[in-house]
Amino acid sequence: MTFLEKLRASINARESLLCVGLDPELDRLPSSVNRTVEGVLAFNRAIVDATADLACAYKPNLAFYEAMGPNGMQCLIETVRTIPADIPIIGDAKRGDVGNTARQYAKALFETIGCDAVTVNPYLGEDAIEPFVAYANRGVFILCRTSNPGAAEIQDLLVSEGGTTSALYEFVAWRAHRWNRNENCGLVVGATAPKELRRIRELAPDLPLLIPGVGSQGGDLAAAIEAHRPSAPAIINASRSILYASNGSDFAAAARASASRLRETMALSLRA
Amino acid sequence: MTFLEKLRASINARESLLCVGLDPELDRLPSSVNRTVEGVLAFNRAIVDATADLACAYKPNLAFYEAMGPNGMQCLIETVRTIPADIPIIGDAKRGDVGNTARQYAKALFETIGCDAVTVNPYLGEDAIEPFVAYANRGVFILCRTSNPGAAEIQDLLVSEGGTTSALYEFVAWRAHRWNRNENCGLVVGATAPKELRRIRELAPDLPLLIPGVGSQGGDLAAAIEAHRPSAPAIINASRSILYASNGSDFAAAARASASRLRETMALSLRA
Repeated sequence: MTFLEKLRASINARESLLCVGLDPELDRLPSSVNRTVEGVLAFNRAIVDATADLACAYKPNLAFYEAMGPNGMQCLIETVRTIPADIPIIGDAKRGDVGNTARQYAKALFETIGCDAVTVNPYLGEDAIEPFVAYANRGVFILCRTSNPGAAEIQDLLVSEGGTTSALYEFVAWRAHRWNRNENCGLVVGATAPKELRRIRELAPDLPLLIPGVGSQGGDLAAAIEAHRPSAPAIINASRSILYASNGSDFAAAARASASRLRETMALSLRA
Repeated sequence: MTFLEKLRASINARESLLCVGLDPELDRLPSSVNRTVEGVLAFNRAIVDATADLACAYKPNLAFYEAMGPNGMQCLIETVRTIPADIPIIGDAKRGDVGNTARQYAKALFETIGCDAVTVNPYLGEDAIEPFVAYANRGVFILCRTSNPGAAEIQDLLVSEGGTTSALYEFVAWRAHRWNRNENCGLVVGATAPKELRRIRELAPDLPLLIPGVGSQGGDLAAAIEAHRPSAPAIINASRSILYASNGSDFAAAARASASRLRETMALSLRA
């Protein structure tokens, strides 16, 4: 089963486009949770238990685990094992390195940690992405237009190539088709840039999209939902607005309520 | 003491521009070394012992440690502790993520692992780099023109901005000056692209350069040495040509001989 097949099956089974970001910060854990690596694992398990029928995917960002050291990486591996086997896991790593090194990152993410998909950075070009794409049954989401306030500084630069001018993010969206030789590539596009999101959907009607930036980052949920295609899903990530929905001992129920509201908003729009 | 002060002191003390890349691959370890995480740590210790008077810096690439799982990350931390305190350590991580997440990566690299400097990716713009730059006594090498065969695909694209046209890597070299508010930024430029290296040195005469790609990748050592300035060093990285100089039990002596040759070639050129 390919990543895309697994993702589509999970979307259909849960009628959900919601991806839950598992980005635990020790300082922001609910007061009832121990501020230790063990506490983080218990927190993640509680969040997964509370949302596994609502989330079409989970997306742990490696930074939060690496900041906790070797035990944090073990916590990530155990978190991945906690997630029901039919829900795809996207390792949000944003890696980009030369071929020999990229192979090691691909091994770390797909084999050592056990992710179904990853995020990668396009700045080094195709040979930095190829070792991930080579895992034909895993997914590779290429950063295209990111959700941070300064994304435009580099990504909106106008580039000239072969007689045409486009923004760099448009070039990446177009070039991703060439990198997609195993039909396992997608694009990362922030909901904070709805105009660029629509443009990317025009350029890449056939690629799955991973859309962060709704929730705490204030992105445009309607534009994100509009980008969804049954054959090329647009999955929509929220992290902090779910994880930290309550600071009390009811955090898991509050996370579920927050996830449920997001999922329902998406489902209503899709039916409309 | 800032990173740049530490780096210059190490260069002067050892009369060396050689940075040794600590990128251990289980499959390539000498036959006398156990192909385990413990073997990797013993290997790294032997390499550091054999080269600490020749190397102005060490550069472990995180991919090789992450591929070994949580114990690999512990191995990296113990390797960092093995390196003499006056030799700067560059965590080659090539990270780039949104601000909230970049702060976690900066914590991982500077605090949890204990690196003196890092490498970062410019695709997300300034706010992805700022959390690293905020550590004023640490160094931040920004990817500019990388050493891989496909670097040109994105980095040589012609970009138009403010009425001028330049390659994207030139724009990054220029923009790095704005990002350098704590005077702790540098650039990564592959020795495999000598023309672009000279151009970057013109655009950024005052920034330290980290130059990979000599040795196994076949880069232009003379062009790399020519880029050196006492006030803005160009340090030159070799990894595989040193680490795997011999497959026998003499690997440490062979690594020392390989490192010594490279250091001496650099020193002769600098004196000429």
